[in-house]
Amino acid sequence: MIARTPQPPYYAVIFTSLRSDIDNGYASMAVHMEELASQQPGFLGVESAREEVGITVSYWESLDAIKNWKANMQHSVAQQRGRDEWYTSYKTRICKVEHDYEF
Amino acid sequence: MIARTPQPPYYAVIFTSLRSDIDNGYASMAVHMEELASQQPGFLGVESAREEVGITVSYWESLDAIKNWKANMQHSVAQQRGRDEWYTSYKTRICKVEHDYEF
Repeated sequence: MIARTPQPPYYAVIFTSLRSDIDNGYASMAVHMEELASQQPGFLGVESAREEVGITVSYWESLDAIKNWKANMQHSVAQQRGRDEWYTSYKTRICKVEHDYEF
Repeated sequence: MIARTPQPPYYAVIFTSLRSDIDNGYASMAVHMEELASQQPGFLGVESAREEVGITVSYWESLDAIKNWKANMQHSVAQQRGRDEWYTSYKTRICKVEHDYEF
């Protein structure tokens, strides 16, 4: 779904990744992380799709909310497993959403 | 591919969309628009994936570069056809990338 975010400004984390061939619990971890993120203070929504690359964009009220999510203990374990097993490369971009419009 | 962008700050346009059932040249237009965008001044890269939703993130040097691309005549025609035929809904978010890191 298209995330129903409030009026800007708010923040976005664009996470673009290339998967390895290793599954080993990836799909269930991805679902669990999305649930966990949605319970974090300041979480506004998430959008995700994967073809050649995977793109997950999560939306947040503030940079502090993003920092707290990055430091979440279960999320830290998942991030480490991502680097060890699930991703061959990724890039994370922290952005301030300044303007939006829709149709 | 993961876009090879320069050191922040730079800008991102997050375009999230839901497709209609109408094809009618959509795929070839999407390819053409990506080629055309890549020739615009200030274009830095693009990432795209579609499953339930489509997410296309394009990266730009400046807000002016984004404005110029939005106003490009061929792109304007494509945007109108998007609203008329190809998308049931979309959301466009204009963002300043403040920080990034990679693995």
